[in-house]
Amino acid sequence: MRVVTTKAELQQLLKIEKKQQKTIGFVPTMGYLHEGHLALVKHACQENDIVVMSIFVNPLQFGPKEDFDAYPRNQKRDEQLAADAEVDYLFVPSVEEMYPYPLSIKLSVEQRVNVLCGNNRPGHFDGVATVLTKLFHIIMPDRAYFGRKDAQQLAVVDGLIQDLDFPIKLVGVETVREADGLAKSSRNVYLTDTERKEAAVLYKSLKQAEKAILEGERKPAQIIHLVKNCLNKHTNAQVEYVEIYQYPTLKEAASLHGMILIAIAVRFKKARLIDNLILEIP
Amino acid sequence: MRVVTTKAELQQLLKIEKKQQKTIGFVPTMGYLHEGHLALVKHACQENDIVVMSIFVNPLQFGPKEDFDAYPRNQKRDEQLAADAEVDYLFVPSVEEMYPYPLSIKLSVEQRVNVLCGNNRPGHFDGVATVLTKLFHIIMPDRAYFGRKDAQQLAVVDGLIQDLDFPIKLVGVETVREADGLAKSSRNVYLTDTERKEAAVLYKSLKQAEKAILEGERKPAQIIHLVKNCLNKHTNAQVEYVEIYQYPTLKEAASLHGMILIAIAVRFKKARLIDNLILEIP
Repeated sequence: MRVVTTKAELQQLLKIEKKQQKTIGFVPTMGYLHEGHLALVKHACQENDIVVMSIFVNPLQFGPKEDFDAYPRNQKRDEQLAADAEVDYLFVPSVEEMYPYPLSIKLSVEQRVNVLCGNNRPGHFDGVATVLTKLFHIIMPDRAYFGRKDAQQLAVVDGLIQDLDFPIKLVGVETVREADGLAKSSRNVYLTDTERKEAAVLYKSLKQAEKAILEGERKPAQIIHLVKNCLNKHTNAQVEYVEIYQYPTLKEAASLHGMILIAIAVRFKKARLIDNLILEIP
Repeated sequence: MRVVTTKAELQQLLKIEKKQQKTIGFVPTMGYLHEGHLALVKHACQENDIVVMSIFVNPLQFGPKEDFDAYPRNQKRDEQLAADAEVDYLFVPSVEEMYPYPLSIKLSVEQRVNVLCGNNRPGHFDGVATVLTKLFHIIMPDRAYFGRKDAQQLAVVDGLIQDLDFPIKLVGVETVREADGLAKSSRNVYLTDTERKEAAVLYKSLKQAEKAILEGERKPAQIIHLVKNCLNKHTNAQVEYVEIYQYPTLKEAASLHGMILIAIAVRFKKARLIDNLILEIP
């Protein structure tokens, strides 16, 4: 694995790979890698000749109340994990390399943002869209890999790629789960033993919703009611939201058909957990 | 020359060219081609294996007071001119092909816009940046060609490409002029015989400015004064602006050094003319 810190060097190296008709898979991250990231790399390795991972804590996507400096970083450990996962190029640019001066162009994400977690993070997805646009242009991958865990981010990136005609295939990778169904997350360590057991209910409630839909339920309000009941009955977590939208537009779903996102967020004492299912309903 | 109307077909065709390592030059236009456009094609042919021209009257860059429907169009004549100029692919998409639904992402150009002609066209360059981003992604050229005649557009596109890291080289092509120096423009036909003679003064006043700078003048106000005097003395046109900026940032130039843009706009009875010089001052 080669660690690269400048755009110019990365572009030079990838130019050589592309001349040899090699396909490129791209996994953008903010580092502090966990199994979720490594699942993305695994998929990218299976589908491409070359895998590029970026590690860049993007200041543009942090709000004024969010602490950019406190975001966890561990480059040495990340390098080891990326190398073990068979990343070919690890791109680790500085903030100055990515934003040498104020941008003359602003990207604003105008749809798919004012729902779910985006409600509380104004401007967050503008920063995500901007850094991805730059990274996509620097790397020009054939495929880009994102987790389904953050379904809203996946939907926003889908909009970015489709609406601006990026010649990139977006791949949404299935959430990695513990044996009991809990979605893997670096935040799970903040759960108490009791909470950890309760946390498995998030996925169970989503599977109950899926079952009800398979059995014929088509009213979103009924499904939301079902999921909330399940969470409230079997956990002490505070339910932040249970929402259902069309996917990937994240528009209201009057009735359940086509691609549907069911997303939940709950707050335990020291950990806020999210999970979701994306279903195709005939 | 092949005329293509869909993104998918164009991308398929260009994929084959790129596999053969051919370089691609791109000339975006709104059609109604004139010698300025053909000069861009000529440059593109000299520097690339393949030349793509687009003809697309972009509704996004027309203001509420500007008439999109009245913009002149003549596709048959354009096709003939493009073929004669040795364009390889002529991309002529419909509005529906380019904008099948409202975009979820908005691009706003925040610098280089509130000066020169941009002052009177709010939102114009947002539309230009959006359509170029889409066309760049569809075509992924090695080089893109724009005339220096519209120096502000060239500066905005420079910002778009640099700030968002597009892997595209921007080529600004020298303005094509009549024997007496008048910049060629489809608007020149609206000049009366007397005005046509006077119009040569635009370029002469710019060359006077250049001469004064070469002789040591470094104060922008002095140069502006000189150009305005020249225009007022030798024409009956109304001087709309004479402005000097750093290029390509279009920031105020406190003193004349580095890359400098001197731009003028004047209004004759039925024609508004612009011209400019971009100078490198040691």
